[in-house]
Amino acid sequence: MTKIEAGQPVVTLINVFTVPAPRQQELIDLLVQATEDVMRARPGFVSANIHRGLDGTKVANYAQWRTRADFEAMLQDPRCQEHMAAASAIAGFEPALYEVASVH
Amino acid sequence: MTKIEAGQPVVTLINVFTVPAPRQQELIDLLVQATEDVMRARPGFVSANIHRGLDGTKVANYAQWRTRADFEAMLQDPRCQEHMAAASAIAGFEPALYEVASVH
Repeated sequence: MTKIEAGQPVVTLINVFTVPAPRQQELIDLLVQATEDVMRARPGFVSANIHRGLDGTKVANYAQWRTRADFEAMLQDPRCQEHMAAASAIAGFEPALYEVASVH
Repeated sequence: MTKIEAGQPVVTLINVFTVPAPRQQELIDLLVQATEDVMRARPGFVSANIHRGLDGTKVANYAQWRTRADFEAMLQDPRCQEHMAAASAIAGFEPALYEVASVH
Protein backbone atom coordinates (compact mmCIF):
# COMPACT_ATOMS: atom_id res chain seq x y z
CA MET A 1 0.00 0.00 0.00
CA THR A 2 1.19 3.50 -0.86
CA LYS A 3 0.30 6.53 1.23
CA ILE A 4 -0.15 10.08 -0.06
CA GLU A 5 0.34 12.64 2.70
CA ALA A 6 1.60 16.22 2.84
CA GLY A 7 4.96 16.52 4.57
CA GLN A 8 6.25 13.03 3.84
CA PRO A 9 9.99 12.95 3.15
CA VAL A 10 9.56 11.97 -0.50
CA VAL A 11 9.48 13.46 -3.98
CA THR A 12 6.76 12.21 -6.29
CA LEU A 13 7.21 11.30 -9.93
CA ILE A 14 4.05 11.32 -12.02
CA ASN A 15 4.75 9.91 -15.47
CA VAL A 16 1.88 9.71 -17.95
CA PHE A 17 2.47 7.43 -20.95
CA THR A 18 0.46 7.57 -24.18
CA VAL A 19 0.43 4.24 -25.99
CA PRO A 20 -1.44 2.65 -28.90
CA ALA A 21 -4.29 0.70 -27.25
CA PRO A 22 -3.18 -2.75 -28.51
CA ARG A 23 0.15 -2.28 -26.69
CA GLN A 24 -1.16 -0.98 -23.35
CA GLN A 25 -0.73 -4.33 -21.55
CA GLU A 26 2.76 -4.76 -23.01
CA LEU A 27 3.74 -1.36 -21.60
CA ILE A 28 2.27 -2.21 -18.18
CA ASP A 29 4.22 -5.48 -18.14
CA LEU A 30 7.39 -3.63 -19.09
CA LEU A 31 6.96 -1.07 -16.29
CA VAL A 32 6.20 -3.78 -13.73
CA GLN A 33 9.31 -5.68 -14.85
CA ALA A 34 11.50 -2.57 -14.71
CA THR A 35 10.24 -1.82 -11.21
CA GLU A 36 10.85 -5.34 -9.94
CA ASP A 37 14.19 -5.88 -11.70
CA VAL A 38 15.87 -2.52 -11.25
CA MET A 39 13.99 0.33 -9.55
CA ARG A 40 13.13 -1.42 -6.28
CA ALA A 41 16.79 -2.09 -5.56
CA ARG A 42 17.91 1.48 -6.23
CA PRO A 43 18.78 3.63 -3.19
CA GLY A 44 15.89 5.92 -2.26
CA PHE A 45 13.14 3.92 -3.96
CA VAL A 46 9.92 4.25 -1.92
CA SER A 47 7.05 3.07 -4.14
CA ALA A 48 5.82 2.68 -7.71
CA ASN A 49 2.13 2.48 -8.60
CA ILE A 50 1.29 1.50 -12.15
CA HIS A 51 -2.14 2.65 -13.40
CA ARG A 52 -4.10 1.38 -16.41
CA GLY A 53 -5.99 4.09 -18.31
CA LEU A 54 -9.65 3.15 -18.72
CA ASP A 55 -9.70 4.39 -22.33
CA GLY A 56 -6.87 2.00 -23.28
CA THR A 57 -4.34 4.59 -24.47
CA LYS A 58 -2.82 5.81 -21.20
CA VAL A 59 -0.64 4.29 -18.52
CA ALA A 60 0.52 6.30 -15.51
CA ASN A 61 3.21 5.66 -12.95
CA TYR A 62 2.80 7.39 -9.58
CA ALA A 63 6.17 6.81 -7.90
CA GLN A 64 7.84 8.07 -4.74
CA TRP A 65 11.57 8.53 -4.17
CA ARG A 66 13.30 9.58 -0.98
CA THR A 67 15.02 12.59 -2.63
CA ARG A 68 15.35 14.23 -6.00
CA ALA A 69 19.04 13.20 -6.02
CA ASP A 70 18.01 9.53 -5.65
CA PHE A 71 15.65 9.91 -8.60
CA GLU A 72 18.30 11.61 -10.74
CA ALA A 73 20.92 9.00 -9.88
CA MET A 74 18.46 6.32 -11.06
CA LEU A 75 18.20 8.07 -14.44
CA GLN A 76 21.96 7.58 -14.88
CA ASP A 77 21.83 3.85 -14.18
CA PRO A 78 22.43 1.99 -17.49
CA ARG A 79 19.92 -0.73 -16.50
CA CYS A 80 17.25 1.91 -15.95
CA GLN A 81 18.13 3.58 -19.24
CA GLU A 82 17.66 0.26 -21.00
CA HIS A 83 14.12 -0.09 -19.61
CA MET A 84 13.31 3.54 -20.45
CA ALA A 85 14.49 3.01 -24.04
CA ALA A 86 12.21 -0.01 -24.33
CA ALA A 87 9.26 2.05 -23.04
CA SER A 88 10.01 4.94 -25.39
CA ALA A 89 9.99 2.52 -28.34
CA ILE A 90 6.28 1.87 -27.81
CA ALA A 91 4.98 4.96 -25.94
CA GLY A 92 5.38 8.68 -25.50
CA PHE A 93 5.75 9.89 -21.94
CA GLU A 94 5.91 13.07 -19.95
CA PRO A 95 7.47 12.73 -16.51
CA ALA A 96 7.51 15.44 -13.84
CA LEU A 97 8.52 15.66 -10.18
CA TYR A 98 6.14 16.98 -7.51
CA GLU A 99 5.64 17.57 -3.83
CA VAL A 100 2.27 17.01 -2.19
CA ALA A 101 0.61 20.39 -1.67
CA SER A 102 -2.64 19.29 -0.02
CA VAL A 103 -4.67 16.16 0.66
CA HIS A 104 -8.48 16.14 0.94
CA MET B 1 -4.17 10.33 4.12
CA THR B 2 -4.86 8.72 0.76
CA LYS B 3 -4.15 5.05 0.07
CA ILE B 4 -3.17 3.58 -3.29
CA GLU B 5 -3.94 -0.13 -3.48
CA ALA B 6 -4.90 -2.54 -6.23
CA GLY B 7 -8.49 -3.74 -5.97
CA GLN B 8 -9.90 -0.74 -4.10
CA PRO B 9 -13.45 0.13 -5.22
CA VAL B 10 -12.41 3.44 -6.79
CA VAL B 11 -11.57 4.98 -10.14
CA THR B 12 -8.57 7.29 -10.21
CA LEU B 13 -8.42 10.61 -12.01
CA ILE B 14 -4.93 11.87 -12.80
CA ASN B 15 -5.09 15.41 -14.15
CA VAL B 16 -1.83 17.13 -15.07
CA PHE B 17 -2.03 20.92 -15.47
CA THR B 18 0.56 23.03 -17.28
CA VAL B 19 0.66 26.60 -16.02
CA PRO B 20 2.89 29.67 -16.40
CA ALA B 21 5.22 29.52 -13.35
CA PRO B 22 4.05 32.85 -11.84
CA ARG B 23 0.50 31.47 -11.64
CA GLN B 24 1.28 28.05 -10.16
CA GLN B 25 0.23 29.02 -6.62
CA GLU B 26 -2.95 30.66 -7.91
CA LEU B 27 -3.88 27.42 -9.67
CA ILE B 28 -3.15 25.36 -6.54
CA ASP B 29 -5.34 27.71 -4.47
CA LEU B 30 -8.11 27.42 -7.05
CA LEU B 31 -8.00 23.59 -7.03
CA VAL B 32 -7.95 23.49 -3.22
CA GLN B 33 -10.94 25.84 -3.14
CA ALA B 34 -12.85 23.83 -5.75
CA THR B 35 -12.22 20.64 -3.78
CA GLU B 36 -13.35 22.12 -0.47
CA ASP B 37 -16.32 24.06 -1.86
CA VAL B 38 -17.78 21.61 -4.35
CA MET B 39 -16.01 18.30 -4.98
CA ARG B 40 -15.96 16.99 -1.41
CA ALA B 41 -19.72 17.23 -1.12
CA ARG B 42 -20.39 15.40 -4.38
CA PRO B 43 -21.64 11.81 -4.15
CA GLY B 44 -18.78 9.34 -4.69
CA PHE B 45 -15.94 11.70 -3.80
CA VAL B 46 -13.15 9.71 -2.11
CA SER B 47 -10.03 11.89 -2.17
CA ALA B 48 -8.18 14.67 -3.98
CA ASN B 49 -4.43 15.14 -3.72
CA ILE B 50 -3.01 18.35 -5.16
CA HIS B 51 0.66 18.21 -6.17
CA ARG B 52 3.03 21.11 -6.83
CA GLY B 53 5.49 20.51 -9.71
CA LEU B 54 9.06 21.15 -8.58
CA ASP B 55 9.90 22.97 -11.84
CA GLY B 56 7.10 25.50 -11.24
CA THR B 57 5.08 24.85 -14.39
CA LYS B 58 3.06 21.75 -13.44
CA VAL B 59 0.30 21.00 -10.99
CA ALA B 60 -1.22 17.53 -10.71
CA ASN B 61 -4.40 16.29 -9.09
CA TYR B 62 -4.50 12.62 -8.09
CA ALA B 63 -8.13 12.06 -7.20
CA GLN B 64 -10.27 9.04 -6.37
CA TRP B 65 -13.98 8.61 -7.05
CA ARG B 66 -16.18 5.71 -6.06
CA THR B 67 -17.31 5.05 -9.65
CA ARG B 68 -16.87 6.44 -13.13
CA ALA B 69 -20.56 7.45 -13.06
CA ASP B 70 -19.93 9.57 -9.94
CA PHE B 71 -17.03 11.28 -11.70
CA GLU B 72 -19.08 11.92 -14.84
CA ALA B 73 -22.03 13.27 -12.85
CA MET B 74 -19.63 15.74 -11.20
CA LEU B 75 -18.60 17.01 -14.64
CA GLN B 76 -22.22 17.98 -15.27
CA ASP B 77 -22.54 19.99 -12.03
CA PRO B 78 -22.66 23.71 -12.96
CA ARG B 79 -20.63 24.62 -9.85
CA CYS B 80 -17.89 22.21 -10.93
CA GLN B 81 -18.00 23.56 -14.47
CA GLU B 82 -17.48 27.06 -13.09
CA HIS B 83 -14.31 25.98 -11.26
CA MET B 84 -13.05 24.10 -14.32
CA ALA B 85 -13.58 27.16 -16.51
CA ALA B 86 -11.54 29.22 -14.03
CA ALA B 87 -8.73 26.64 -14.16
CA SER B 88 -8.78 26.47 -17.94
CA ALA B 89 -8.41 30.28 -18.09
CA ILE B 90 -4.93 30.02 -16.57
CA ALA B 91 -3.75 26.47 -17.37
CA GLY B 92 -3.92 23.66 -19.89
CA PHE B 93 -4.84 20.26 -18.54
CA GLU B 94 -5.10 16.67 -19.60
CA PRO B 95 -7.30 14.50 -17.39
CA ALA B 96 -7.60 10.71 -17.67
CA LEU B 97 -9.27 7.98 -15.63
CA TYR B 98 -7.35 4.92 -14.41
CA GLU B 99 -7.51 1.78 -12.34
CA VAL B 100 -4.56 0.68 -10.22
CA ALA B 101 -2.75 -2.13 -12.06
CA SER B 102 0.03 -2.87 -9.57
CA VAL B 103 1.64 -1.42 -6.44
CA HIS B 104 5.31 -1.93 -5.53
